[in-house]
Amino acid sequence: MKFLFTNILGSFVLDEQGKMMDSILFTDLKEFTEKKSEDLLQKKYKQSIPLPQEKYHLFLSLVKEKKYYELFHQRNLRITKKALKASVSDDNLITQAIANMGELDKITNLLSKRFREWYGLYFPEIGEKIASHEKLIEFILKKNKKELMQQFSIKETMGSDLGKEDLEEIKLLAIQLQQLYLLRTRHEEYLTTVMKRYCPNLLELAGVTIGAKLLELGKGLKHLAVLPASTIQLLGAEKALFRHIKTGSRSPKYGILFQHSLVQKAKKQERGKAARSLADKLSLCVRLDYFKGEFKAPNYKKELEERFR
Amino acid sequence: MKFLFTNILGSFVLDEQGKMMDSILFTDLKEFTEKKSEDLLQKKYKQSIPLPQEKYHLFLSLVKEKKYYELFHQRNLRITKKALKASVSDDNLITQAIANMGELDKITNLLSKRFREWYGLYFPEIGEKIASHEKLIEFILKKNKKELMQQFSIKETMGSDLGKEDLEEIKLLAIQLQQLYLLRTRHEEYLTTVMKRYCPNLLELAGVTIGAKLLELGKGLKHLAVLPASTIQLLGAEKALFRHIKTGSRSPKYGILFQHSLVQKAKKQERGKAARSLADKLSLCVRLDYFKGEFKAPNYKKELEERFR
Repeated sequence: MKFLFTNILGSFVLDEQGKMMDSILFTDLKEFTEKKSEDLLQKKYKQSIPLPQEKYHLFLSLVKEKKYYELFHQRNLRITKKALKASVSDDNLITQAIANMGELDKITNLLSKRFREWYGLYFPEIGEKIASHEKLIEFILKKNKKELMQQFSIKETMGSDLGKEDLEEIKLLAIQLQQLYLLRTRHEEYLTTVMKRYCPNLLELAGVTIGAKLLELGKGLKHLAVLPASTIQLLGAEKALFRHIKTGSRSPKYGILFQHSLVQKAKKQERGKAARSLADKLSLCVRLDYFKGEFKAPNYKKELEERFR
Repeated sequence: MKFLFTNILGSFVLDEQGKMMDSILFTDLKEFTEKKSEDLLQKKYKQSIPLPQEKYHLFLSLVKEKKYYELFHQRNLRITKKALKASVSDDNLITQAIANMGELDKITNLLSKRFREWYGLYFPEIGEKIASHEKLIEFILKKNKKELMQQFSIKETMGSDLGKEDLEEIKLLAIQLQQLYLLRTRHEEYLTTVMKRYCPNLLELAGVTIGAKLLELGKGLKHLAVLPASTIQLLGAEKALFRHIKTGSRSPKYGILFQHSLVQKAKKQERGKAARSLADKLSLCVRLDYFKGEFKAPNYKKELEERFR
């Protein structure tokens, strides 16, 4: 009885005692996938059978030799690296971009508060008139104090007259902020492009931000496609869900989906229902996207909008 | 007996029952500081004396009338606004700029980590070779993957080949980061300019970052100038100090001063001593600066450097 065995090193023929009778070593990993060498040995040793699992130890003791061991290690590394290289998908790109958008939101908020405080030394009244950070910065970079006082009918200011270079420094911060806001918009456009190609149904029904967040929270389209709709409904509400399980507080009705316009526009007592229906349809969308199905999201959207208006 | 009284409304003459005999109302706040009207009334009513404090209530009941009350309110507001307007000093500007530098440090760190992760999808090996975020970004913006692999002798990469627009998006983040680093440098230059004028001694001995931080922690030059040297030594170590007081753990030897090159370079067992001497001299520096004294910091610096080398 002879045994045939193939791994990433090559194809081997062993006798019953585990002694190596013959072998074809691969020079390249390609040969491993082609499986030719095993066929060759099979022809040469007609009686041979595949090494049964309970006898693997015979082979393992053979490759403990240093030359095999080294090669084994290297080949395995190469395989892993190749797999890694191939593993980067649109999921990763989307996750990174949406995560960075979250980061940018935090950052612009932080810097905007600092900006308001700093600029407040010069012209505190304007900060009270314009609530949006982005708008405030836009106005300040476009017009000077006098023009702004006129436009917003501010008669008097408590702010002190700063030196030109002091004001310049604050404006540098404003310019920086403006660029950060711009980068956020760019990310959003980029996400739209990627998602249009990768998951058009999800994009259409969930919108770009919520769609990308769902992919991030659901750890990729594939995983999202196998999640039940009820889980999708609660993605992003993990904290409230576990509190519910632990303390028996009321169960959450929506996670990230709360931000969706459909849920927002629904009557208060219908929001839970809207979130559930939305999650149902989203679950269909991600499956369509994952299996490269039709573009049905517009129909779903219409259906939902009619139901909850 | 007649009483004379002046406040921001005007100058008044009251009789003993608190009835108003005569008054000169100010039309402008300037007249209040000039004190002319009181002199006029004094000449007219030779016998009059300033209203004693225990009789203020006589006057107060008079100005409860609506027309006085309104005017009083308005004038007080104007005074406060003027005071506020005049209260913005270099202290405020320095505090805002150094606080923003701290903010930028946090932000660049956050975004750099995100950048490393994102770019790692494309070329993970380069991140391990270059530890400094700033350097990494510089290299990546200047050279492409192939050039970098050559320069850092990286033979193989696990990173996947991203599409052009995917890579572009990551590079936008890198450019943004570079500008944030630039803004930080700009702030530092700005601080140097302001501090050279405002507190040259402190700047010379403490350096720009530590000097500005001391002004921030000490709540301005004036307050810093009245602090004992031992407090200056521990600015920035409040947490450890209160822990020491509460739990009896070892007392801190330095706060922000730990970052000073003099303390850094000193032998380990001499660091506490170095911090104490440095705080002594810094205390002298801030007093010199506050009272617009001589520029003695270079001498102090030399003295300290000789002692702790």
